[in-house]
Amino acid sequence: MVNTIVIFGASGDLTARKLVPALYNLMRKGRLPANTRIVGFARRSYTHEDFRKLMRDGVAKFSESGIDEQVWAGFEPLLFYVRGELDKAEDYTMLDGALRKIEGSAANRTYYLSTAPEYYTPAAQALGKVGMANETEGFRRLVIEKPFGRDLASAMVLNDAVHAHWAEQQLYRIDHYLGKETAQNILFFRFANALFEPVWNRNTIANVQISVAESVDVGHRAGYYDTSGVLRDMFQNHLLQLLSLVAMEPPYSFNADAVRTEKVKLLSAVRAIDTDDVVLGQYRGYAETPGVTPNSTTPTFAAMRLFVDNWRWRGVPFYIRCGKAMPKKASEITVQFHEPPHTMFTTVNVARMRPNAIRMFIAPKEGINLTFASKVPDTTQEARTVSMSFDFNEQNGERLPEAYERLLLDAMLGDASLFIRSDEIQRAWELMDPLVQNHTAPTVYEQGSWGPSESTALLKREGVTWIQM
Amino acid sequence: MVNTIVIFGASGDLTARKLVPALYNLMRKGRLPANTRIVGFARRSYTHEDFRKLMRDGVAKFSESGIDEQVWAGFEPLLFYVRGELDKAEDYTMLDGALRKIEGSAANRTYYLSTAPEYYTPAAQALGKVGMANETEGFRRLVIEKPFGRDLASAMVLNDAVHAHWAEQQLYRIDHYLGKETAQNILFFRFANALFEPVWNRNTIANVQISVAESVDVGHRAGYYDTSGVLRDMFQNHLLQLLSLVAMEPPYSFNADAVRTEKVKLLSAVRAIDTDDVVLGQYRGYAETPGVTPNSTTPTFAAMRLFVDNWRWRGVPFYIRCGKAMPKKASEITVQFHEPPHTMFTTVNVARMRPNAIRMFIAPKEGINLTFASKVPDTTQEARTVSMSFDFNEQNGERLPEAYERLLLDAMLGDASLFIRSDEIQRAWELMDPLVQNHTAPTVYEQGSWGPSESTALLKREGVTWIQM
Repeated sequence: MVNTIVIFGASGDLTARKLVPALYNLMRKGRLPANTRIVGFARRSYTHEDFRKLMRDGVAKFSESGIDEQVWAGFEPLLFYVRGELDKAEDYTMLDGALRKIEGSAANRTYYLSTAPEYYTPAAQALGKVGMANETEGFRRLVIEKPFGRDLASAMVLNDAVHAHWAEQQLYRIDHYLGKETAQNILFFRFANALFEPVWNRNTIANVQISVAESVDVGHRAGYYDTSGVLRDMFQNHLLQLLSLVAMEPPYSFNADAVRTEKVKLLSAVRAIDTDDVVLGQYRGYAETPGVTPNSTTPTFAAMRLFVDNWRWRGVPFYIRCGKAMPKKASEITVQFHEPPHTMFTTVNVARMRPNAIRMFIAPKEGINLTFASKVPDTTQEARTVSMSFDFNEQNGERLPEAYERLLLDAMLGDASLFIRSDEIQRAWELMDPLVQNHTAPTVYEQGSWGPSESTALLKREGVTWIQM
Repeated sequence: MVNTIVIFGASGDLTARKLVPALYNLMRKGRLPANTRIVGFARRSYTHEDFRKLMRDGVAKFSESGIDEQVWAGFEPLLFYVRGELDKAEDYTMLDGALRKIEGSAANRTYYLSTAPEYYTPAAQALGKVGMANETEGFRRLVIEKPFGRDLASAMVLNDAVHAHWAEQQLYRIDHYLGKETAQNILFFRFANALFEPVWNRNTIANVQISVAESVDVGHRAGYYDTSGVLRDMFQNHLLQLLSLVAMEPPYSFNADAVRTEKVKLLSAVRAIDTDDVVLGQYRGYAETPGVTPNSTTPTFAAMRLFVDNWRWRGVPFYIRCGKAMPKKASEITVQFHEPPHTMFTTVNVARMRPNAIRMFIAPKEGINLTFASKVPDTTQEARTVSMSFDFNEQNGERLPEAYERLLLDAMLGDASLFIRSDEIQRAWELMDPLVQNHTAPTVYEQGSWGPSESTALLKREGVTWIQM
């Protein structure tokens, strides 16, 4: 059976940068499902040839491995282009006809919405109305990029509109953070080892920190970003997903619904966030950026303290932060353990000792680090903190694959483990909604700093400091 | 106050090789107690000058750092030599007079018995009889090298004979394994970290392995070794000490008696060893070695399974082995964890996964290694075993100090933590006595092998294999 992937908004940046290079790499690795067809759909007047040339340029530029002519020769004929408008119902009928010609027979179809968010509802509905969601001739799946709404109400409206034509199991909502190997490895680390699970709870863990720092400012995304801000752009999705992975109960199986049910359970156990536990920041100069509303109060940084009210985590603070214009780009989760309940050593240099920490590096560093106390050689009882590390790349030949490679393949194969279910979306918005709806003006922070000093103060109340990244 | 250290049997190998280089290094590091005097006592006719020259050669050859002339200039005048016979009572009176002259005033004294074992009782008794154990003019301590007896009965006789003149707290019985930094670090690893103690028990740990392999054969020690064998020479002391460190309960404090009480408790909880759980070996060619009794049944290798009958360890096998003429020199403790109780991943390559293990390298490699399961990058659900390591030497500038450096200093400073108390000796012999008294003929194994195949079979009964060293 033919497997078609249709990219809506194919003339956009993401297609040449990420999606087609990912599909090309799947082909190169022999993983692209048999009889795949890749069809771009957008408003511009491209021929198949134009589209193929553009995609070749994209692969050459953005694929780690560059172009292998032999692979490309097999890949190029799979690429097609159909011109059409996302908001014209008749263009969907036209597209369906064009697809049938390309496919030649019954086919599975994966529709990928790589469009501006305002087209999600019209596209999902139009596809439904012209019968393109109907699965009698093969599966029909709809892949949707974030953002899934801009608050709880709009997310619910979007979910309802999509559900009018699509069953939940046809929907693949992407959070590209879940496609990262290091994010997936959190579950392996926790549940493929007997050593960590018994200490992964309030008895042993003092706090958990999740930091996602971007060194860039808003750049050319200013117009969009100003209507979004860090809470919508990062917290509602990526940060709450990382929180779910590090804190959820063990699923009974690694299937999509078992994993996602545990994530929803975890998000449901998160206590409503106290506004006293939230710090918002905006880097100096943001409000003067072209495209940003003057005197904008959009936050470009947030730090907050969360609590998970269940047996495992009750009382353990989760400190999470994310911002732009930070000193470096780094995503990291740190699990900070308690000090030993009793120190039998009359250690002189207590200052050199820190409690155990497990650091999970998500990006750009990819690995795990464990700090522990060890004896200072050639002393009687002095201890110091040392560490050991595992580097994901060092022990792996090739570079880790791009998140989209994994996510596109999973969508085509029907594995929804790494995609977001509608109840996850809803629960994540329920947590963020009070903060995005009605927040105070953010505090200005310097570019290249770790955000406003209130972020440090938030942890200091409990004698904690952010881990140095 | 003057601090005198008297080395009995000072013309022996150990003095120039280990003891005086260790004292020299303490001086170099500024740790040698003020007003130290080092007095060699032996049968040979040396002058102070002869002794000093011999010791200089020893330091030059055996001290890692060689001779620093400035340090040596300060160290040399501290060295003295007194000629005498260990079995002549009058020579002790003479020694006492010579010491008083060297000391000039009241002095603390540490007597170090670096003699053949048959002199332990006469020397300890003679010192007592002439009043040299009397502490009215400064402390008097007696340091005794292994072996402490050759079975339970002889150890009890030795303990009683020594106790007739010495209080237990005056006695410092050396096990140089305890002086190794990596052995001491076992307690730091366990009790200065909150992460490991909660999983250090039967719920999480499947088995513990202790291996001490020597690549050398008996060499020039054949005569002594043939009367001893691996059980007396290594198990009764070093291996049971390592077992104590890895398995004991947390002491309330790192003081000598608190630590040693926990070790005795642990040894007391070891179940009497089933002879079916013991494998004895003798390397091929041993019985033909000059100095060895023809048809000797002395074992040069042993492997055994022990059980610790307490709440922490009930049912967890401890596999311990030690031998000569092994493929390499290596001492290592491996804590092998259970497999995860439930594997949610439908891992294809189960064969590539091993349960967690913590390996503690005692010698010559010095460090810690943790193996854990991690996701195989660029796969959906495959896991593999990876590891992270801490190397004691890498994160430490200078080489780790020799065990004797630490032990000599501790004896002079009165810290008996790393010395063996009489009840430890007794309990260790109670465990080994049935094996040394009445054992079957050992199985011959090839030199350069890991011992007889029965050693592998001992673990295989339970589906376990020795960790590859």
